[in-house]
Amino acid sequence: MNREHRRAAILSIGDELTLGQTLNTNSRWLAERLSGAGVLPVEHVTVPDDLAAQTRAILRLAAACDLVVCSGGLGPTADDLTRQALAEAMGDQLVEDPLALEQVRAWYESRGREMPEINRVQALRPSKGQSLQNLHGTAPGLFGVVRSGGQECDVLCLPGPPGEMFPMFDAQLLPRLRPPAGLVIRTRTLHCFGIGESDLAMRLGALMDRTRNPLVGTTASGGVVSCRLRYEGVGPGDAAEAALDETERLTRAAAGAYVFGSGQATLAGTVLDLLRAKGQTLGCVESCTGGLLGAYLTEVPGSSAAFVGGLITYSNYIKNSLAGVPSALTSPGGPGAVSGETARAMAKGGLDALGCDHCLAVTGIAGPEGGSEAKPVGTVWIARVSRDGSGDVRRFQMSGSRQNVREWSAKTALAMLRFHLAGLAGFKMLREVAKFQDAGA
Amino acid sequence: MNREHRRAAILSIGDELTLGQTLNTNSRWLAERLSGAGVLPVEHVTVPDDLAAQTRAILRLAAACDLVVCSGGLGPTADDLTRQALAEAMGDQLVEDPLALEQVRAWYESRGREMPEINRVQALRPSKGQSLQNLHGTAPGLFGVVRSGGQECDVLCLPGPPGEMFPMFDAQLLPRLRPPAGLVIRTRTLHCFGIGESDLAMRLGALMDRTRNPLVGTTASGGVVSCRLRYEGVGPGDAAEAALDETERLTRAAAGAYVFGSGQATLAGTVLDLLRAKGQTLGCVESCTGGLLGAYLTEVPGSSAAFVGGLITYSNYIKNSLAGVPSALTSPGGPGAVSGETARAMAKGGLDALGCDHCLAVTGIAGPEGGSEAKPVGTVWIARVSRDGSGDVRRFQMSGSRQNVREWSAKTALAMLRFHLAGLAGFKMLREVAKFQDAGA
Repeated sequence: MNREHRRAAILSIGDELTLGQTLNTNSRWLAERLSGAGVLPVEHVTVPDDLAAQTRAILRLAAACDLVVCSGGLGPTADDLTRQALAEAMGDQLVEDPLALEQVRAWYESRGREMPEINRVQALRPSKGQSLQNLHGTAPGLFGVVRSGGQECDVLCLPGPPGEMFPMFDAQLLPRLRPPAGLVIRTRTLHCFGIGESDLAMRLGALMDRTRNPLVGTTASGGVVSCRLRYEGVGPGDAAEAALDETERLTRAAAGAYVFGSGQATLAGTVLDLLRAKGQTLGCVESCTGGLLGAYLTEVPGSSAAFVGGLITYSNYIKNSLAGVPSALTSPGGPGAVSGETARAMAKGGLDALGCDHCLAVTGIAGPEGGSEAKPVGTVWIARVSRDGSGDVRRFQMSGSRQNVREWSAKTALAMLRFHLAGLAGFKMLREVAKFQDAGA
Repeated sequence: MNREHRRAAILSIGDELTLGQTLNTNSRWLAERLSGAGVLPVEHVTVPDDLAAQTRAILRLAAACDLVVCSGGLGPTADDLTRQALAEAMGDQLVEDPLALEQVRAWYESRGREMPEINRVQALRPSKGQSLQNLHGTAPGLFGVVRSGGQECDVLCLPGPPGEMFPMFDAQLLPRLRPPAGLVIRTRTLHCFGIGESDLAMRLGALMDRTRNPLVGTTASGGVVSCRLRYEGVGPGDAAEAALDETERLTRAAAGAYVFGSGQATLAGTVLDLLRAKGQTLGCVESCTGGLLGAYLTEVPGSSAAFVGGLITYSNYIKNSLAGVPSALTSPGGPGAVSGETARAMAKGGLDALGCDHCLAVTGIAGPEGGSEAKPVGTVWIARVSRDGSGDVRRFQMSGSRQNVREWSAKTALAMLRFHLAGLAGFKMLREVAKFQDAGA
């Protein structure tokens, strides 16, 4: 591999992928690794275990890119056709590689087994190509140069199982990648919650201009709207970082208090960090989220430093008996289980029962059943009550499926606490439709 | 859409996908739906937010397939270019669709908000195409016919967020699909829990032969091992169903009591059905799972009929104060918070505090910190205690990440209750390393 790798394509191979029986996680992993190394992934393709389709895909991608990274189809069985496809795309023949054969045999021997004869086929490689040793399985990788569309392209074939593919890529491909001299690709991601994607885009304005560098794009996923910053240019890494610093500053200024973190940050992790910095603790009382808020918090390693626990008060009986919600609130004639009064009482009861500094409570109608005209599916009341006597109780109108309503509700509760802990109380949030007066603890 | 849909391509659009910032789960979902409907997915492609690349991909795939399903790029921002790409591939112009505009406006109005001006662009469609209503978000879908390579192809563009894409596909595309006359592709899935994939494969034996029809394959995901049955043939649907019935019978016989359901069944849903059939209730007391078990249960619509609630006893203080775990158990010199004694005490305490017929308790070390030689990361004790006086307390050694340990633990607790409710008590489960004697309530 001694050509410049400017544009890369990622080719995944396997019937289980094209039929949707297996989720493809290799493509994303390879794309992240390549772009991190300064090589731009421009297309991902998945084709079945079909020799003609594989060969066609390699030739097409080789004409448009400098590097094609394939994964899958290197096993020992009849539906593993990547060796043959690479040879055909190279206009070459397969030959047995004695060293590769020795390595496959050695892999079995080191496990006290004899190599099954079926695995011999794994030592084949195009006569003008190379075999790459697999330290974590039997399938050697392959490398070859394909001429297509008037240019040459490096083609690399890796085994499909992530446990074999990841280390082979890191050990054997990464050091040999040749990103364009001086070309630097750097990315950053800022995460927002409590604002819609359209509103955020209007705030970002010209920052989202498609000709800008760094480029700013947005993606919404599970209520979190992320700003993706991407710098691409020739020059020292310092200049890239400086440009990203400036764009990040402008993006944060535009998005304001809705930005809760960057990179791998989660809302729960951000809230737990704020709590730990203050030496304070959190508990929760959940009805419609049924444990999801607690699950988000305890997903974070070390969460026990700030999260003490919670009550899942799914039935009214448990709301009354464990969270101390007066039964008048949940009985006929009262405001009901889904109300500002009940949400506040749940949070206050949790503060006492759990002995924490802050308590979040969520009660709502996740659907699909249980809605009424006054309280349609998606009606959710969220309360935050704190040891310092402050409180905040809001009504939201969530939309989407039962699971959407639950996920948004749990995240919205975390965001309400985040605003409070960061001294940003009072911010109106997306889907908020009312505030409960007299919310204090 | 009135042509036969024999071969389909799936086109995903977005920089965040090609750069590897986001995992593409849409392609798999679409592939599963299409093949389930008898339309064969032959290629998946992912391209960036780049008008030329998108247009090129649509034209290339339209020349090779009868149907192209795109997802993503229908948002309101400058990097959302799918509307334009479809129009270019059709050789058409974009026009504003008054009905679509009305629907976007109505979506905002129903949420008490005014449509931001930026969203107006979402009402654009190719003049010869159609808009598809989005009941779960602002982005209408698009449909158009593309002429390429001497043939016509149906092209459908769906919004990227799964919460919008899934229902739009099911409501608007699925009924209009026209799989090839006579070709029948039928699939079934049986789900197992408590057995490993290799052990299951050995039990299945010749059923997994690659030339068999129906074909049987296995996929493991989050501890659930699923047997995928797929029939493909020309002929009446009856023959397909009869062949699948027989293969399902053989598969169930081989997998035995580990099969908990089929199709869309979940462990939580299966357990709730068993409880409802007996008119019994369930509560849970969670430590290392931190609410995840409750979240799995309450994800199921109507779960309140059998699930009453739970305690998230993350701190020892709350284990003692709310679940009534004797402090001698969790104090220095006692067996500790992660022990059979504590798991049993948590479940017994929960049975009383929650007033339910069965209580599940989980306590363990999810990691990455907190392990010791005697109790390494992944050590989890799970207790089931029932009103009838019976009980079951087991120690497991889970592996993998913090999240893996938590997910396996919550599912294993559900599976323990399932075995009990189905009269299958005594079954040894995968990763089980010890049983606690004297487990009764």
